[in-house]
Amino acid sequence: MNAIDDLKERLGGKVSTAESVLETHGRGESYRETRLPLAVVFPESTEDVQAVMAWANEHAIPVIAVGAGTSLEGQTVPQGPAVSLDLSKMTRILQVSPEDFLAVVEPGVTYQTLNRTLRNQGLFFPVDPGADASLGGMAGTNASGTTTVRYGGMHQNVLALEVVLAGGEAIQVGRAVRKTSSGYDLKDLFIGSEGTLGIITKLSVKLHPLPVHVHTLRAFFPSVEAAAEAAYALMASGLPLARVELVDDRGMNDINWYLGRTYPELPALFLEFHSSTRGGLEEESAEVQRLVREAGASSVDTAVTAEERTAQWEARHQLYWAFTKHHPGQQYMLTDAAVPLSHMPEIVALAHRLLTEMELNGTVVGHVGDGNFHTVVAVAPGDYARTQEFADRIAEAALAMGGTATGEHGIGVRKKKYLALEHPSSVPWMREIKRLFDPKGLLNPGKVVDPK
Amino acid sequence: MNAIDDLKERLGGKVSTAESVLETHGRGESYRETRLPLAVVFPESTEDVQAVMAWANEHAIPVIAVGAGTSLEGQTVPQGPAVSLDLSKMTRILQVSPEDFLAVVEPGVTYQTLNRTLRNQGLFFPVDPGADASLGGMAGTNASGTTTVRYGGMHQNVLALEVVLAGGEAIQVGRAVRKTSSGYDLKDLFIGSEGTLGIITKLSVKLHPLPVHVHTLRAFFPSVEAAAEAAYALMASGLPLARVELVDDRGMNDINWYLGRTYPELPALFLEFHSSTRGGLEEESAEVQRLVREAGASSVDTAVTAEERTAQWEARHQLYWAFTKHHPGQQYMLTDAAVPLSHMPEIVALAHRLLTEMELNGTVVGHVGDGNFHTVVAVAPGDYARTQEFADRIAEAALAMGGTATGEHGIGVRKKKYLALEHPSSVPWMREIKRLFDPKGLLNPGKVVDPK
Repeated sequence: MNAIDDLKERLGGKVSTAESVLETHGRGESYRETRLPLAVVFPESTEDVQAVMAWANEHAIPVIAVGAGTSLEGQTVPQGPAVSLDLSKMTRILQVSPEDFLAVVEPGVTYQTLNRTLRNQGLFFPVDPGADASLGGMAGTNASGTTTVRYGGMHQNVLALEVVLAGGEAIQVGRAVRKTSSGYDLKDLFIGSEGTLGIITKLSVKLHPLPVHVHTLRAFFPSVEAAAEAAYALMASGLPLARVELVDDRGMNDINWYLGRTYPELPALFLEFHSSTRGGLEEESAEVQRLVREAGASSVDTAVTAEERTAQWEARHQLYWAFTKHHPGQQYMLTDAAVPLSHMPEIVALAHRLLTEMELNGTVVGHVGDGNFHTVVAVAPGDYARTQEFADRIAEAALAMGGTATGEHGIGVRKKKYLALEHPSSVPWMREIKRLFDPKGLLNPGKVVDPK
Repeated sequence: MNAIDDLKERLGGKVSTAESVLETHGRGESYRETRLPLAVVFPESTEDVQAVMAWANEHAIPVIAVGAGTSLEGQTVPQGPAVSLDLSKMTRILQVSPEDFLAVVEPGVTYQTLNRTLRNQGLFFPVDPGADASLGGMAGTNASGTTTVRYGGMHQNVLALEVVLAGGEAIQVGRAVRKTSSGYDLKDLFIGSEGTLGIITKLSVKLHPLPVHVHTLRAFFPSVEAAAEAAYALMASGLPLARVELVDDRGMNDINWYLGRTYPELPALFLEFHSSTRGGLEEESAEVQRLVREAGASSVDTAVTAEERTAQWEARHQLYWAFTKHHPGQQYMLTDAAVPLSHMPEIVALAHRLLTEMELNGTVVGHVGDGNFHTVVAVAPGDYARTQEFADRIAEAALAMGGTATGEHGIGVRKKKYLALEHPSSVPWMREIKRLFDPKGLLNPGKVVDPK
């Protein structure tokens, strides 16, 4: 029997070869090429995933785990004949234990769905990569987001995993407690492995109390240096900073164009604080204003109510859409470097200079508390090579500063060349790990590292 | 040439075979057996460590990395012929970058030494396991401590490592930035591997601003349940809890005996908060008092000045000494289970019941915000088997509650049997990892996992 017919016989209606389904799974966000998988399987249980791996072993056909499909580096795009394993039907929230600050979920649950479920219990899961990503996919790429400066990313907020390995066995790694020193940390080996070492089928995640006293601030600065200085002063102050986002002057111009606003077209910081008490909030807010003004902020406004805060943050929230409408291209490429904090002004200045020199449309948005920023670049028809060169130069500059080519988007296909530059001494050991867990090359081949 | 003579020829005066030095390195804190190493080497550089591994390969003699020698599970005690690699001479602080919240240190630097160096810069390294442990050793066992509830343990606070592998090559893992998604997370594989996968020769660690507005509170409760309820209420409140330590009624009795005090002999919580502002502190302190009283605290006092805080916390700080003086034994065994928070009262009650039934002298001290607690048990002559049985029953109960046998002390020799119970499906893969990184069994054999 032909392999796909055999897959359909084993998994029945959970397998699709419809053209439109293959199309969707052959594309990646912000990734140039489309390559169709042979089929798409929608497992509904760990056993289904194990059945797919049994099939994969018998037919020597690789499997690509797919969450919500929001990855940005081609993580889910086939690099050869393969089937997509779409986990978006595994959406059960298996357990919520408020008194343990713990939830156990299937990999297809998105963080937004989880947070809607938790809201009435006064809890939330903090990692917010932006797109409505699935928790399994977020673990796969070690996602983080705007709140990482305070709450950490997936490594810090996933306590345990169930993983189906290449051979089909399901193992439990990590432990659903707040700390453990029991044996080798395999949990964090799977986090960030982009489906190349195993398929995540269950996650135990750490929950946090919903902040009650939230205040935000938006400030404009004469320069990125001044904005970075303000961010540093806030980080050093011990103030309960939960978000610190930079939008550059180009981004503010996009926003004014898109929303018809008259914001100063200057680098802006968007800040959010989670205070413990109402009285603390007021004193903290005053202190924040003092610090940002001292760093040179020219215009500062604060907000406390949810409506005010949403309005104040519109430029940050709508930036991506404003940019894409203002600079229509066929695609958008996002750089993702992170550098030691003191290098932020230097690398943002480099990005601006290169955008100008290379005549590219781009804007910078940054999680500056973590030294991580994205340049969003519109890739006009024919501009791909130039955009790629821009991205290369940013990644290389970040590496030269002791930084990383990817703060939160992962390696996928496109960043493999940077991986070798960033980890020259340890990439051979990453290859050994890949060979150990996936000797037949059945798990998302062509991503992260090539085994030989 | 005899192997040890050869080692001396290669490493010169850095090798000792003096009886007293072998003695010190043949013992472990709280570990029963003493077994002398063949020699002790005191490397002064990564190259020295590489030279020792070259020697180890040629002579097929294993190497045991030793930091400050404060590990509690026999991690540094030879299980067969081996040399100790004592890293306590590698004490250089190579870099402090306040603006990057970063320090780079050699493995022999203790966290207390690092913190003395950082104090003038308004920064600190938060992981405080108690004994003046070295940072290399703390990474080896994935240490944590009283501030972990707020700042995390070694996984969260070590960003990058240099590691010398079994074959002698030095590799760099992780990256000295606040976030990265670049390839497989090998850094966290070495953290907690207790010298069985490689020798840590350099660490890049994350620094935090020193808290300026600190307030503490000590409260006595009618029961451990009430104390745990208070701890939960505080965790759920979003108050800036930096430490939450439990001392049980037995411990307060030890303190009264040792220091001549008249504290209530009731379960006590010792709390510390790091506030952002002076005004916030006052409102937070009032809120903390309200919450602990609501949970049933019978006696509450607060402190703000450093002197008051130190005095208030004496019962927590001096507990171990008070216990050992009050219950002199030949040795002291510490359990180290961690459980989901809601199970704390149940497992502490079990510990109390077993101590009474088994006629053992013991007291409970807990990092209750993390669900981690220690029973300190005096091991009187002839009592070892009974104490071990007590420890087994606590570990098994913790595992049955979904917890871990070790929150922060690691596996070493004594907890290997629990590792298999805790991670039945993933221990075979830990063995594979061990075989991959140490095919000849040269790195601390007999600890954590046995390769076959």
